[in-house]
Amino acid sequence: MIRIGVAGYGYWGPNLVRNFAETPGAQVAAVADLDPRKLELVARRFPGVTTTTRYADLLADPSIDAIAVATPVHTHHDLGLAALRAGKHLWLEKPMTETAEQARLLVAEAAQSNRVLLVDHTFVYTGAVQRMGEIMRAGELGTIYYYDSTRVNLGLFQHDVSVIADLAVHDFAILDHLLGEHPVAVSASGVNHFSGTPENLAFITLYYDSGVIAHTNVSWLAPVKVRQILIGGSRKMIVYDDMEPSEKVKIYDKGISFTDDPQQIRELRVGYRSGDMWAPKLPTTEALQVEGRHFVECIESGRQPLTDGGLGLRVVELIEAATHSMRGRGEAVYVQRRSGDRRQSRAPRRSGDRGFEQRTAL
Amino acid sequence: MIRIGVAGYGYWGPNLVRNFAETPGAQVAAVADLDPRKLELVARRFPGVTTTTRYADLLADPSIDAIAVATPVHTHHDLGLAALRAGKHLWLEKPMTETAEQARLLVAEAAQSNRVLLVDHTFVYTGAVQRMGEIMRAGELGTIYYYDSTRVNLGLFQHDVSVIADLAVHDFAILDHLLGEHPVAVSASGVNHFSGTPENLAFITLYYDSGVIAHTNVSWLAPVKVRQILIGGSRKMIVYDDMEPSEKVKIYDKGISFTDDPQQIRELRVGYRSGDMWAPKLPTTEALQVEGRHFVECIESGRQPLTDGGLGLRVVELIEAATHSMRGRGEAVYVQRRSGDRRQSRAPRRSGDRGFEQRTAL
Amino acid sequence: MIRIGVAGYGYWGPNLVRNFAETPGAQVAAVADLDPRKLELVARRFPGVTTTTRYADLLADPSIDAIAVATPVHTHHDLGLAALRAGKHLWLEKPMTETAEQARLLVAEAAQSNRVLLVDHTFVYTGAVQRMGEIMRAGELGTIYYYDSTRVNLGLFQHDVSVIADLAVHDFAILDHLLGEHPVAVSASGVNHFSGTPENLAFITLYYDSGVIAHTNVSWLAPVKVRQILIGGSRKMIVYDDMEPSEKVKIYDKGISFTDDPQQIRELRVGYRSGDMWAPKLPTTEALQVEGRHFVECIESGRQPLTDGGLGLRVVELIEAATHSMRGRGEAVYVQRRSGDRRQSRAPRRSGDRGFEQRTAL
Amino acid sequence: MIRIGVAGYGYWGPNLVRNFAETPGAQVAAVADLDPRKLELVARRFPGVTTTTRYADLLADPSIDAIAVATPVHTHHDLGLAALRAGKHLWLEKPMTETAEQARLLVAEAAQSNRVLLVDHTFVYTGAVQRMGEIMRAGELGTIYYYDSTRVNLGLFQHDVSVIADLAVHDFAILDHLLGEHPVAVSASGVNHFSGTPENLAFITLYYDSGVIAHTNVSWLAPVKVRQILIGGSRKMIVYDDMEPSEKVKIYDKGISFTDDPQQIRELRVGYRSGDMWAPKLPTTEALQVEGRHFVECIESGRQPLTDGGLGLRVVELIEAATHSMRGRGEAVYVQRRSGDRRQSRAPRRSGDRGFEQRTAL
Repeated sequence: MIRIGVAGYGYWGPNLVRNFAETPGAQVAAVADLDPRKLELVARRFPGVTTTTRYADLLADPSIDAIAVATPVHTHHDLGLAALRAGKHLWLEKPMTETAEQARLLVAEAAQSNRVLLVDHTFVYTGAVQRMGEIMRAGELGTIYYYDSTRVNLGLFQHDVSVIADLAVHDFAILDHLLGEHPVAVSASGVNHFSGTPENLAFITLYYDSGVIAHTNVSWLAPVKVRQILIGGSRKMIVYDDMEPSEKVKIYDKGISFTDDPQQIRELRVGYRSGDMWAPKLPTTEALQVEGRHFVECIESGRQPLTDGGLGLRVVELIEAATHSMRGRGEAVYVQRRSGDRRQSRAPRRSGDRGFEQRTAL
Repeated sequence: MIRIGVAGYGYWGPNLVRNFAETPGAQVAAVADLDPRKLELVARRFPGVTTTTRYADLLADPSIDAIAVATPVHTHHDLGLAALRAGKHLWLEKPMTETAEQARLLVAEAAQSNRVLLVDHTFVYTGAVQRMGEIMRAGELGTIYYYDSTRVNLGLFQHDVSVIADLAVHDFAILDHLLGEHPVAVSASGVNHFSGTPENLAFITLYYDSGVIAHTNVSWLAPVKVRQILIGGSRKMIVYDDMEPSEKVKIYDKGISFTDDPQQIRELRVGYRSGDMWAPKLPTTEALQVEGRHFVECIESGRQPLTDGGLGLRVVELIEAATHSMRGRGEAVYVQRRSGDRRQSRAPRRSGDRGFEQRTAL
Repeated sequence: MIRIGVAGYGYWGPNLVRNFAETPGAQVAAVADLDPRKLELVARRFPGVTTTTRYADLLADPSIDAIAVATPVHTHHDLGLAALRAGKHLWLEKPMTETAEQARLLVAEAAQSNRVLLVDHTFVYTGAVQRMGEIMRAGELGTIYYYDSTRVNLGLFQHDVSVIADLAVHDFAILDHLLGEHPVAVSASGVNHFSGTPENLAFITLYYDSGVIAHTNVSWLAPVKVRQILIGGSRKMIVYDDMEPSEKVKIYDKGISFTDDPQQIRELRVGYRSGDMWAPKLPTTEALQVEGRHFVECIESGRQPLTDGGLGLRVVELIEAATHSMRGRGEAVYVQRRSGDRRQSRAPRRSGDRGFEQRTAL
Repeated sequence: MIRIGVAGYGYWGPNLVRNFAETPGAQVAAVADLDPRKLELVARRFPGVTTTTRYADLLADPSIDAIAVATPVHTHHDLGLAALRAGKHLWLEKPMTETAEQARLLVAEAAQSNRVLLVDHTFVYTGAVQRMGEIMRAGELGTIYYYDSTRVNLGLFQHDVSVIADLAVHDFAILDHLLGEHPVAVSASGVNHFSGTPENLAFITLYYDSGVIAHTNVSWLAPVKVRQILIGGSRKMIVYDDMEPSEKVKIYDKGISFTDDPQQIRELRVGYRSGDMWAPKLPTTEALQVEGRHFVECIESGRQPLTDGGLGLRVVELIEAATHSMRGRGEAVYVQRRSGDRRQSRAPRRSGDRGFEQRTAL
């Protein structure tokens, strides 16, 4: 039985407590929050759970195996580091940290202390994303050409993070999971319509060495809610509409074929193909429940989580790069990768060693 | 009765001939095309129309008042110039020309020869765009925040123009009509997935001095057809879905309100408002028919067309700017404007006299 | 503070307990269920609530003001009657009773004992139905021509009641509320595809003296879930799609106009009108919460509930009539109404005193 | 080359002329209409086609092989009979005739004179209906349980035929094609909201010996256009939405399974199954074009058309039965079938020899 301490009982914390309470093999041991009124809510709903206003109490409790941190982003690094150093496994809300540098420190600490570090990118655990991953890994789409996401609604304006850290972060995590490739460059545009607030609307393009181009359109200022991803490949294409009550993922046997036939050199060398459409049945287990069980299994088996610190770090790197590019009105920010030398540069260096993310190096 | 000569009977020419044949006050006098087989089609369907393989015949015919040019883009400048110089009014297919420089020459020639020059941006004449323009000019949306368009499908790959000149061009014309403001900068990303072909997918952001940000997502490689524009304002927001069989334009009484109340300085200062939705009845006359009548009226009255050479030029400027930016991976291209000095610069000069387009100066 | 005892903690009971727990002015005093394991669930979630396996305990408890009965339909009459006779106010699940005769007895008992009797037709309390009622009572639709409902899905087969008592019952209650008129005749067709089970699919037409015709298509055997009601009037028409996440109710300024002009006697005398569409904002309070507060207010003020025993009875009469008609393959069943003489007849008596429901007589 | 004379150039005639003009192996020889102005239209668009105000001219022309009749329904019998007796093949608009008796006479005449008689139930030739037929004949749906169609819009009121003859007729033909079975009984309800006009709204249930139940909801008075058919089977279910621009036909691997396990006798013995959804690619050839070619092939090969006089007759029988039932407020009308004795009876005779349609007997 993995005993879990939850830090933060604001917007997301209650979901974590409810979820871990229902996760086989897990148990909520204690909840910490600075606000005693929130702890009263815990006490009323979960009489068996200890409550405290002091995070240190969670660290000091030897019966607690893991800590889930659901506090504001700027506290993630300090609280997470303390948890790992106290020998606890760590579940961190997304985005992992404010800066990539902080994320790297947490990744290193988790490796050194041999603790599980899971970043809560819940979307990766949905039936839809898991199924799309299977389909793509099986090669059904052929060569991937693009990923195009729209994620807009009349949304909760946040005062500490921009719409990139709030919404685009989902696409960054999904892309990392589906493509297994890190972008080489990011170009973003966006704006804050209300002075003194973070950007509330952004358009972000990610360039990949493999030729994939990814784009996400995120906004807190749309009159309708859209959650749609198109993925185009040489053989098939996917439409994933998360607002559909069922048949969220549709695979279209549509595409183009291309000839290099010199005879047709002056003609349009592109042909169209249009076949059946197919919507696979998706597992219906709630993603957070899947993720909770996965966390327990990783702790028990020592396995690396699907959304480990490495993925969390790469997402933070993209948030940083997109934010820099957005403030430079779209100027490409290059995400460089070398062993032992991960830097980011705004200089448009487009050749040489920008290389791939070495996932195993993380 | 305005007698019209049509040059080019390929993809769009037949629509023009059919349309002018049904336009009150207009008459199709002659059709020119290099391909005699196409002229045979004309002769069969429209026995009264003269056909010729020589464009010069149209110019030389004194009974012809106006020429409509529906040939490949790279011929627009030369054919258009010749028409104006022959004293003919001119209807030019979009995009107006290959380069902004060519467009400027045509605008100047039309002004000098006092001929009507209409660029066929048909979308501007749709009931939907006209109605949205009325609503926006009446101030119903309040301050405009953004324009966000998605225009994707499994499309006809073109070998001479990119997806920007094929699809984004619609948004450039609609934006010019709706906002009456020229962007100051353009950032675009895009890719051609098949070597030797133009870009087949692009994401373009337009920055405006007024604070509006516009974005269009265009692709020939999507499994589903989407034609959707969101326009957000401080008071109301629009969703225009051109794929809907009816109620294409919906106005949402939704928005956010923002307080500067210092008491709430540490709180989230944004409030949400959600009211009724309303879909105005749209006129059902075909846009091309409206445009044809407008051309005739402009010739008869000497009035400037809604989509005149100035609009056509500004659209070509944006195509150029977006194409440059796209090849620079999103680096902003500044569209500069001074009287007698219209230049484009990739240097990120973000302050100073980039000013507004002086529409009357055109 | 109204103290409520809830009988039955199966499918719907837990919703009632949760709802009354959150209703201002109400308090859940006790829960009765024959199954001790269900009572354990109550005890764990609501430690302050008394539990019992004996319904009589609820009746005997003088601190209990009202009883909510959420047990199988065949027990409604007996449990409801006992509650009223014990001086309790009564909340009864729908359908009210198995037979119209039983319903009449409960209505009479509630009147005699001066207790509130509310039948839980929750749909009547939704923002959508309430708003449609306001619009219709304001005459915005003009003369009502028809009501056409589709209510199908791959549904929970029930072994004690047919799809009429499960799904069509919603339309019967909504119609009663919206039209304020009782049908004069019912024609229904339907089938049970699995021997020994109740009908799983039915098509029901209701005829009204005012000329309205109503129809509902209900099924447990549809691959997609549809919840759509069309209401057509001489001036406007409504589409209410309950599956839409927002803008569930749309009012179309569409209709036909009809001329009796003798000059046009040989022509088609019908003209079409098509104007704007409008979707009013709907209140977002949960219907069950609205209904709970309404129950408390009725008890406190002695006011008759919106869904009183009379409405519950009329719904049961329609279930009976539709079931009879369905087993006679559509033969009309006439719902007769006279003071002191409410009978139902399958004989096609189509003239005379079949009259209206006298709502005040109930 | 089959030379065709077309009678009637009103609403549908022009489609027939255009269609036959493009049908390989066919040629429009002449058009007859009482209105000389309509004939002028023909002359202008199709200079090679003879025009006449006298139907007899078509009959007398020995170069004409077939006659297509697109005149009002009440003339179908006389014009059709004359055509067959003049030795012409016959294409008849739907519905075939005003009465089943007239239809039987035409069927007999066509058999005797050995001429092809095709009734223009165009829907049967759509890619969607053809594909559904293949899927159903291959047994993919398992046992068919129901067919449920909605076919409503703000429609053209007709003064000579009711909405049943205008819209339900499509479902009658599609059902005949898909099921290969004739209903045994019909129950219908409906109303005319404007005195002196035919019924503008109707709900029709068809009962089949095999246990299938079919229903169609047709209206000229709906604010939105719906064209949707659900077909449920024991193994799979179909949704055919003709308003979708693509993926009109979707096959759901959904259903219920039923156990007779006596152990579960007191339990709900029904289980649910939910699997993938699949939308087959449909042929895109226009249905009328497919039908035109089919007509030519039948004439050349002597083959019986898919929509022959037998199908046309069975559709007219259902129109008659539904109309009778509707005027009897839903009372079932039995469609009786015996060799040499086809009668219709309103007496509710529900056992005995009501039998199947003997298709070969026609």
